[in-house]
Amino acid sequence: MLSTPLPNPSLQVTADHSLKQVDAPVHSPGKGEVLLHIKATGVCGSDIHFWRTGRIGSLVVEGDCILGHEAAGIVLKCGEGVANLKPGDRVAVEPGVPCGECFLCLDGRYNLCEDVQFAGVYPYHGTIQRYKTHPSKWCHKLPDNVTYTEGALLEPLSVVMHGIKSAGLSLGRGVVICGAGPIGLIALAAARASGAHPLVITDLEPRRLEFAKKFVPSCQTYLVDKNLDAQANSKRIRQLFGIEMVGEYGAPETVLECTGVESSVVTACYTARRGGTVMVIGVGREIMNNLPFMHLSLAEIDLKFINRYRDTWPSGLQCLAGSILDLKSLVSHTFPLEKALDALHTCGDLSNGSIKVQIVDEVEDVL
Amino acid sequence: MLSTPLPNPSLQVTADHSLKQVDAPVHSPGKGEVLLHIKATGVCGSDIHFWRTGRIGSLVVEGDCILGHEAAGIVLKCGEGVANLKPGDRVAVEPGVPCGECFLCLDGRYNLCEDVQFAGVYPYHGTIQRYKTHPSKWCHKLPDNVTYTEGALLEPLSVVMHGIKSAGLSLGRGVVICGAGPIGLIALAAARASGAHPLVITDLEPRRLEFAKKFVPSCQTYLVDKNLDAQANSKRIRQLFGIEMVGEYGAPETVLECTGVESSVVTACYTARRGGTVMVIGVGREIMNNLPFMHLSLAEIDLKFINRYRDTWPSGLQCLAGSILDLKSLVSHTFPLEKALDALHTCGDLSNGSIKVQIVDEVEDVL
Amino acid sequence: MLSTPLPNPSLQVTADHSLKQVDAPVHSPGKGEVLLHIKATGVCGSDIHFWRTGRIGSLVVEGDCILGHEAAGIVLKCGEGVANLKPGDRVAVEPGVPCGECFLCLDGRYNLCEDVQFAGVYPYHGTIQRYKTHPSKWCHKLPDNVTYTEGALLEPLSVVMHGIKSAGLSLGRGVVICGAGPIGLIALAAARASGAHPLVITDLEPRRLEFAKKFVPSCQTYLVDKNLDAQANSKRIRQLFGIEMVGEYGAPETVLECTGVESSVVTACYTARRGGTVMVIGVGREIMNNLPFMHLSLAEIDLKFINRYRDTWPSGLQCLAGSILDLKSLVSHTFPLEKALDALHTCGDLSNGSIKVQIVDEVEDVL
Amino acid sequence: MLSTPLPNPSLQVTADHSLKQVDAPVHSPGKGEVLLHIKATGVCGSDIHFWRTGRIGSLVVEGDCILGHEAAGIVLKCGEGVANLKPGDRVAVEPGVPCGECFLCLDGRYNLCEDVQFAGVYPYHGTIQRYKTHPSKWCHKLPDNVTYTEGALLEPLSVVMHGIKSAGLSLGRGVVICGAGPIGLIALAAARASGAHPLVITDLEPRRLEFAKKFVPSCQTYLVDKNLDAQANSKRIRQLFGIEMVGEYGAPETVLECTGVESSVVTACYTARRGGTVMVIGVGREIMNNLPFMHLSLAEIDLKFINRYRDTWPSGLQCLAGSILDLKSLVSHTFPLEKALDALHTCGDLSNGSIKVQIVDEVEDVL
Repeated sequence: MLSTPLPNPSLQVTADHSLKQVDAPVHSPGKGEVLLHIKATGVCGSDIHFWRTGRIGSLVVEGDCILGHEAAGIVLKCGEGVANLKPGDRVAVEPGVPCGECFLCLDGRYNLCEDVQFAGVYPYHGTIQRYKTHPSKWCHKLPDNVTYTEGALLEPLSVVMHGIKSAGLSLGRGVVICGAGPIGLIALAAARASGAHPLVITDLEPRRLEFAKKFVPSCQTYLVDKNLDAQANSKRIRQLFGIEMVGEYGAPETVLECTGVESSVVTACYTARRGGTVMVIGVGREIMNNLPFMHLSLAEIDLKFINRYRDTWPSGLQCLAGSILDLKSLVSHTFPLEKALDALHTCGDLSNGSIKVQIVDEVEDVL
Repeated sequence: MLSTPLPNPSLQVTADHSLKQVDAPVHSPGKGEVLLHIKATGVCGSDIHFWRTGRIGSLVVEGDCILGHEAAGIVLKCGEGVANLKPGDRVAVEPGVPCGECFLCLDGRYNLCEDVQFAGVYPYHGTIQRYKTHPSKWCHKLPDNVTYTEGALLEPLSVVMHGIKSAGLSLGRGVVICGAGPIGLIALAAARASGAHPLVITDLEPRRLEFAKKFVPSCQTYLVDKNLDAQANSKRIRQLFGIEMVGEYGAPETVLECTGVESSVVTACYTARRGGTVMVIGVGREIMNNLPFMHLSLAEIDLKFINRYRDTWPSGLQCLAGSILDLKSLVSHTFPLEKALDALHTCGDLSNGSIKVQIVDEVEDVL
Repeated sequence: MLSTPLPNPSLQVTADHSLKQVDAPVHSPGKGEVLLHIKATGVCGSDIHFWRTGRIGSLVVEGDCILGHEAAGIVLKCGEGVANLKPGDRVAVEPGVPCGECFLCLDGRYNLCEDVQFAGVYPYHGTIQRYKTHPSKWCHKLPDNVTYTEGALLEPLSVVMHGIKSAGLSLGRGVVICGAGPIGLIALAAARASGAHPLVITDLEPRRLEFAKKFVPSCQTYLVDKNLDAQANSKRIRQLFGIEMVGEYGAPETVLECTGVESSVVTACYTARRGGTVMVIGVGREIMNNLPFMHLSLAEIDLKFINRYRDTWPSGLQCLAGSILDLKSLVSHTFPLEKALDALHTCGDLSNGSIKVQIVDEVEDVL
Repeated sequence: MLSTPLPNPSLQVTADHSLKQVDAPVHSPGKGEVLLHIKATGVCGSDIHFWRTGRIGSLVVEGDCILGHEAAGIVLKCGEGVANLKPGDRVAVEPGVPCGECFLCLDGRYNLCEDVQFAGVYPYHGTIQRYKTHPSKWCHKLPDNVTYTEGALLEPLSVVMHGIKSAGLSLGRGVVICGAGPIGLIALAAARASGAHPLVITDLEPRRLEFAKKFVPSCQTYLVDKNLDAQANSKRIRQLFGIEMVGEYGAPETVLECTGVESSVVTACYTARRGGTVMVIGVGREIMNNLPFMHLSLAEIDLKFINRYRDTWPSGLQCLAGSILDLKSLVSHTFPLEKALDALHTCGDLSNGSIKVQIVDEVEDVL
């Protein structure tokens, strides 16, 4: 335990999946660890999910757990053996700490490590607190021109970068993004920054599509028609690519599915061009039905899946530092740490037009 | 029309999806075409499907159509401009003739050409006849040590080679093959020839697994337990890889799904190791339900699909000529051309232990 | 022969490798061909090479040959069987016409076809003339917002796109471009459009680097120091990536070598990060010496090569039409068709600061 | 220091690059380490190189160093925290111990780690001794049916497996192996086990080719003619693929260069088919001259390089345990540990027909 000049307010989810705001103990940084003052944490759909349902797949909240995993902060103290960081360094937090010993880790697929310790997933405390220890190896130094807000956005950007790296976007090839939530919008920006073109983003909400169009003006938007089936919607989406003029080859090579909703996944399958890829980035359901397997075979479309990310912070940082991507306008609401509960309520309320909600802690630290 | 010394018996499926054996007219080879005497044609599940249901997906039998697309024969005559073949050359037939003009063709993905003319799929006549014309470009010369029987097996081998090329098998990595029918057995042999190891093949029929074990002795077999669900079956399959000793990394990297049956596809999804691939080679149904999307995401498993093959005859021929693969023992039954109807009935009867049924025509041609 | 209202001025290289400007006969479009009025042709270093040395590798100018292969124009007449174009269509010309029959063509690697007929390479006449026939399949329709000037730039852009596709650039990963000539500058723009970052471009000429910096402001420039050896120059280039702060991993993943000069190739080998790629885009010499093989092995750097391009016009067009790339400012000089000889002299003169020289023909056609 | 019932004879290279046989101290296994009794070590060309020249590239022998890195043994003692092994386990040694912290390690490219501690490379002692400590993470458990001799062969097999994985061999595609030394012979066997065909192996020594032919009977051999230049030799090698009958496409897709000799590398460049790959496995020289860059560009041939291996022991073990590969006959000479000096002299003498020389220690250990 460490004594600190300021209290350590935290937001916790409980085993009976309610939320509570309490002061949490502060730990001294162990070997290879740093003590961080967390300056910004974004709220993620998974935080809302843990709170409302107590689980995501096999991950179950069995006791009190501090939420939060999209974070950036400043190094206050370094534990023994830390060479890459020093007090005062500003860092983005890579929240998953893999074992580093298993063959999946050795093979560089550390996101698939079965013993990963992921901040904000029970029993590992997350970043919605003031003081958090974290292995220095998984803290990435922020260049001076990258803010804490942007640093915290590196986590959802990492999800997108891992997905588009696996999907393999390329210059002048069409992409559809299904879903204009935070992940979909980052996917849109990242696809644009990768030179993919034409770009179409789809959603059920006109307001979200309006935001998308402002965010990436060169995109086209498609308002999903709930009265049409997947094939009919996909036909209309493909028309936006001028498919009637240039033929099948002009249809989108890649569909980035960011909703996890069945009708959207099925639409994605019918939308990708022959030989294309549907990259499933958003997963909402254990089981998916109505997959058009015959179509996927005849069109030779691959269905790819990702689990989080690996090796994305360094390149993500280059994108932000080099103005390849500008994601700042995605943050629609910010709350001070002491109002973290309000942040989750705001993020969980679909009616308020929130995009990315962040919890910030601007107090000066005197440690 | 061409007059020939022998009649041209053929097996046709009709618009009301019955079968008939009739003499068919013989055509002169056009520009770039050869006239073949078809010496061997294998019967495929799709032939049975056209006969029994009149369609496969959007491919509908709307009139009389000669069946057959797994074929080898001898060149009798060359049309104008044929440079790669001469009368007397023995060839394997690549049955799909793509347009050669669209971007998919130019990009080398000719199997995805939307204007492919596929022998044995209405309205393009197939190879269960004595005399067939075919573009010389899509006839592949057989080395002397490759028989017509083997030449006809190049077509199902091509399906498998295209699938394993896309799946990317490698030396000393485990593979599961679901289904011990003709495609599954060829997949087993091809996986073995690619150095994949350990190999497990699954089926519901002990008799088929016995054949598999004789065919590729280094494989293990797994009799699917219909009383168990997909996860339980997959757990047992994974145990055959010594997964308890070596951990997740020792689980099969690739699952080649050759049944098209939903329970098998779902089992495949739970069987592949984290970061692995499920290659869907057999497709039986338009729509698939119960796909474990959450599992596929957490384990980052890709679901890949193929449509037939491209660029497989040359390497398939090398495999047969160089004894890298020996597929001859797969041919369990042969029928003379005049008994082609019996061949289809034998192939369509699941109780007789048939594996690959071929129709052969051994008459000496005097053209 | 076709009689046309206007003469057909052309620029030809001769067997004794001088240049001449003469009227050339006009051909009627054959089956599958269109007759084009060429509106713009860019001059390429290879044109200069043919003129000055009479050969490039095994390609020898053995008789009169109209030069030019970077072209765009308008369709005047369609030959028999042309379905994709009609008179009045504006098109970019893909100059290489592969055989379409060999396995390399069938495999989609048509740029490697041994029977390619390449416009502007003896004995195939090129595009520095008013009226040229070309297969319609290899003419790509220009969207309304793409000019002839840009259409002609699609050819060098294709070289670059083929190279970066093979090299595999990705978002937020560093790239070095060696050489700030037309290909290097297009590579710089294409790397930027692909999201690669940081970008460094190198050259011996300060003036060229100044242009590069204006062309892609986010790049850094490095003036090669002729007094330093390759290792010393590479060390300085790597420092621009902040390699001292972030370590080897921050070094450039990819080096796009666009000079063909030995010292530059060797520098490229020392500059790429461990596990990176040197993509050789420019080739100037038959034989290369002083390759640091031990270093390439220890650092596991791949040396990749390209021959022209395949399947690049459609995506290149999307880039231009969608403003993903803006290459127009590369055209430093234009000459009317009748002054084509001056265009070659200007391009071949290194002292005048020319970048891309184009020959344009703005007369209205009345055919 | 640990006191052991038996002495610890070792073979060391010295700073003035002579060899000496002396008893070495024995260390207690530290945290995460095991103490091994080394049962077999193969002698590698690099051992000879360190002895004769005192260096390989930047790796310099600056003091006494126990040689040896191709090893297998039995676990005698486990240090603190070792969970994957226990005394009595038989293991193969992966000799390079990467830092596990740098981005190259996290990315799975641990063979490129700049802080690797490689057994047998100064200042890290190797395996030509009786008792060696090694991190348990880098010891791979041998199945019962894999001998120590085979276990020690996993190291050169790993070099080959890493090379062919990067080169991407496939079923029924031709491969040339340049050089019939130990690495070339293992490459030949591994290419055969991967289904590559046809296979041609080249060498200057008829005796080595005879061995190759016995080792892998389906291969063809080519005796390099020193009186011919690279292009002439390559032409003859290509003829063995029937290139005159099947054309360029039938030429070898991949050339595995295992000699490091310039004339062989240049021959390899001319031998690979258009669009193929030359994989440089053997590196003998700092600098290479006479690379045919123009040819490599026109033929679009990639030149790939490897540094050792990563993630190869698990799949290599499967190959040996599953009889996918049988390498035992490569061991032409064995010497007891006390005669290690003779082993190096035998390996370094080109006249005695040795292939792989191993040092074995069959004494029963009583620790």
